[in-house]
Amino acid sequence: MCLGDDHTCPQFDLHRQQLLADLDRERRSFLKSAFVATGAAATLTAGGAVLTPAHAQTAAARQGRPNHHYLPATADTVHWGYFSKLLKPQIEIQSGDYVTIETLTHHANDDAERMVKGDPGAESVYLWTKDKKGVDRRGAGPADGKLLGRGAGEGFGVHICTGPVFVHGAEPGDVLEVRIIDVKPRPSANPQHTGKAFGSNAAAWWGFHYKELLTEPKPREVITIYEIDATGQRNWAKAVYNFQWTPQTDPYGVVHKTIDYPGVPVDHATVKENHGILKNVRIPIRPHFGVLGVAPKEADVVDSIPPGYFGGNIDNWRIGKGATMYYPVAVPGALLSAGDPHASQGDSEMCGTAIECSLTGTFQVVLHKKATLAGTSLADLNFPLLETQDEWVLHGFSYANYLAELGDKAQQDIYSKSSVDLAVTDAFKKMRAFLMGTKGLTEDEAISLMSVAVDFGVTQVVDGNWGVHAVIKKSLFAGGEA
Amino acid sequence: MCLGDDHTCPQFDLHRQQLLADLDRERRSFLKSAFVATGAAATLTAGGAVLTPAHAQTAAARQGRPNHHYLPATADTVHWGYFSKLLKPQIEIQSGDYVTIETLTHHANDDAERMVKGDPGAESVYLWTKDKKGVDRRGAGPADGKLLGRGAGEGFGVHICTGPVFVHGAEPGDVLEVRIIDVKPRPSANPQHTGKAFGSNAAAWWGFHYKELLTEPKPREVITIYEIDATGQRNWAKAVYNFQWTPQTDPYGVVHKTIDYPGVPVDHATVKENHGILKNVRIPIRPHFGVLGVAPKEADVVDSIPPGYFGGNIDNWRIGKGATMYYPVAVPGALLSAGDPHASQGDSEMCGTAIECSLTGTFQVVLHKKATLAGTSLADLNFPLLETQDEWVLHGFSYANYLAELGDKAQQDIYSKSSVDLAVTDAFKKMRAFLMGTKGLTEDEAISLMSVAVDFGVTQVVDGNWGVHAVIKKSLFAGGEA
Repeated sequence: MCLGDDHTCPQFDLHRQQLLADLDRERRSFLKSAFVATGAAATLTAGGAVLTPAHAQTAAARQGRPNHHYLPATADTVHWGYFSKLLKPQIEIQSGDYVTIETLTHHANDDAERMVKGDPGAESVYLWTKDKKGVDRRGAGPADGKLLGRGAGEGFGVHICTGPVFVHGAEPGDVLEVRIIDVKPRPSANPQHTGKAFGSNAAAWWGFHYKELLTEPKPREVITIYEIDATGQRNWAKAVYNFQWTPQTDPYGVVHKTIDYPGVPVDHATVKENHGILKNVRIPIRPHFGVLGVAPKEADVVDSIPPGYFGGNIDNWRIGKGATMYYPVAVPGALLSAGDPHASQGDSEMCGTAIECSLTGTFQVVLHKKATLAGTSLADLNFPLLETQDEWVLHGFSYANYLAELGDKAQQDIYSKSSVDLAVTDAFKKMRAFLMGTKGLTEDEAISLMSVAVDFGVTQVVDGNWGVHAVIKKSLFAGGEA
Repeated sequence: MCLGDDHTCPQFDLHRQQLLADLDRERRSFLKSAFVATGAAATLTAGGAVLTPAHAQTAAARQGRPNHHYLPATADTVHWGYFSKLLKPQIEIQSGDYVTIETLTHHANDDAERMVKGDPGAESVYLWTKDKKGVDRRGAGPADGKLLGRGAGEGFGVHICTGPVFVHGAEPGDVLEVRIIDVKPRPSANPQHTGKAFGSNAAAWWGFHYKELLTEPKPREVITIYEIDATGQRNWAKAVYNFQWTPQTDPYGVVHKTIDYPGVPVDHATVKENHGILKNVRIPIRPHFGVLGVAPKEADVVDSIPPGYFGGNIDNWRIGKGATMYYPVAVPGALLSAGDPHASQGDSEMCGTAIECSLTGTFQVVLHKKATLAGTSLADLNFPLLETQDEWVLHGFSYANYLAELGDKAQQDIYSKSSVDLAVTDAFKKMRAFLMGTKGLTEDEAISLMSVAVDFGVTQVVDGNWGVHAVIKKSLFAGGEA
């Protein structure tokens, strides 16, 4: 399916034009509401020198002091379900700047009372009446939604991504360091739920479990709503209720028999809420961003679901507070986006989703120019690398760069070609290259070391391009001779 | 290949007779040396009421006090490369008894100077002159070794297993609990290496990396020798040297171009030792038993390499001090064996082996009768379950019971049919059954919980029947209503 990015498509020119027109509409919409957005930023920040994008470029930045920017999540600051190098930046920053980014879960409409109602940002994003949608395009599919009739973008990609953030001076070949300074749950704006935040877990058709269900009715999709302490002081979540998905009719009249399009409002009159579930079970929370990454260069519009060298939907719960991510910059300005916020997830994300819960993150963004990388742990970085205080975590996928490896139909084929075995192989190759390239080991040293001291885990088996991460402790290299 | 356990084989009777004759020889050998073995036990123990097997049955056991048994590793107390329900027990114990079991790595002859020389137990096991072997059969293959000409047992199975231990009263359907009380490295008996222990890591042809080598010569096998503090006080290992495997001629004159038969003595005049490798790298140690398990019932002689419901070669580094294993009992007496000791291993055991290092373990063995299991975490247990202070770890494999699932040629076919994907599926099913059966959750509760709070990791991708483990924190269930 040509989205205006397949040069071999006979109708390429037409599709390209449609694509650019779609994106242009989104840009104009942004410009119209820019004043509102930056106004919101000034009132919402919790401290630091808050500057609008315009200020950031003209004031403190040039004096070498980092600025602190704020990017709220509104209908005009998000791109829903896709990455694109063609997107207009929502904010422009300098290396070293801080940026607080609001992110919204794309599952908030599973329980709009708890996760949307009374929240101006979420309401603007989720706005959907019979006449209009706050954000029309949801996914990387055709904007007219006539391919499968699901809606604009067809839900080929589901995550509400806030951004992109343009980093001055970032060029292909550089590495973008993103330090996660803080992560906070987004409180429910509904006065009935003061002090609480909520998340949704969907055991959905794309889950690894779906074809293996034991009990009737089979198959089925089940939504579980979780409650989280909005202050972030309590380190566990608990289930509130669950319900089985029933066909939901969206405001445009399309019936969604399964969870096939993001943001469809669930009519709770049509579902049966089962309360008292997972009684006495406390889920340790691990707030993190399922999606965090830069824009890929290979296509103009890229489905947000499969992760790749550019990061994106890695779905590793370690990408939380205190962690640092490094991404190879693929396009000018890097175009950093954040989304798919999770309150908690297990390695594998078995049923297809985490506790999908809106979060606000504060990041410091540092640009490493290509010329400075030789001899560092970032030399030749061609994948998203995670650093914590104690560990390096390397991300392998079934395909390291599926967009380049799988040809013209990469965005379709990735969904049928993944295996964990391939992801183990990719993680092995990346770890070997890391140990040889940045630690100066021979191949034999690297292979022995990774067999006796590197842990390989299953990141996710539900995102098209499946993931395996390899964890190596920094303390391995801290010893002197003994 | 019929090993005397394939009832459809036209030569079944002949093969069966050969098998029983082989095993009988091993039994007679045991009886001859029983006095020596138990004598050694009395001198080697570090404390506690040491009793020979005969004493254990007649003295304190009947008074309800647990006994402490000692099982040294000698040519007569080990079975090399296979499990068998037909093996004569080396020791008989009561539920609640303690048993200290010496285990020897099957890689000790990679550097006999450091890991065999001067150690009577290891020397008796590794004895191999042109006229005789201390332990002839190594593997589950034909005892005459004429199939591939590698040697008796053909190396179809490689681990030196100490045991089996017969547990009085254990019957099929029961669960055997094995508490790992202590694990100690086996010191080098060579006076030149006092205070040190050693291990070998083989990057071998069965490793996951083998077909992906970057540098010449390709392919190659590489042995890395590691040094460990024999007192167990220092929590890290370091590399001593490595060498590339060269064709090794065993004392019977068979040339081993690759590492195709366990215990072949490496002639260090034929290899080039590279010292000064992995300089300043400290490997955190995780002493554990790669092999720990009970005898399977499906076949008379079972290759020690693929793990299964009976445990065996699970190769999970968490099976160390402080951990408890639970196994479904498949044959009368359970027939517990231990082997494949590791100083450290990473999740995946990428290159085919860990730091293979002789260890001595102290275990307490508790029998749970089938009738007592209902409503407990052990109800309907049909796989090896690991418990630590904080976690339950469930072991999934490509095939939960490959011996039963893959038919007559299971022991061959398992090597070509595994995938990590299958092992993820098996681990998922086991975790679901565990949460539903022992925690009383519905299927929907179980599936949601495992997506948001259970971590799936790659245990190993090198043991024929590949493994994925699922880790769930006990604290999930510790909460009251809030």
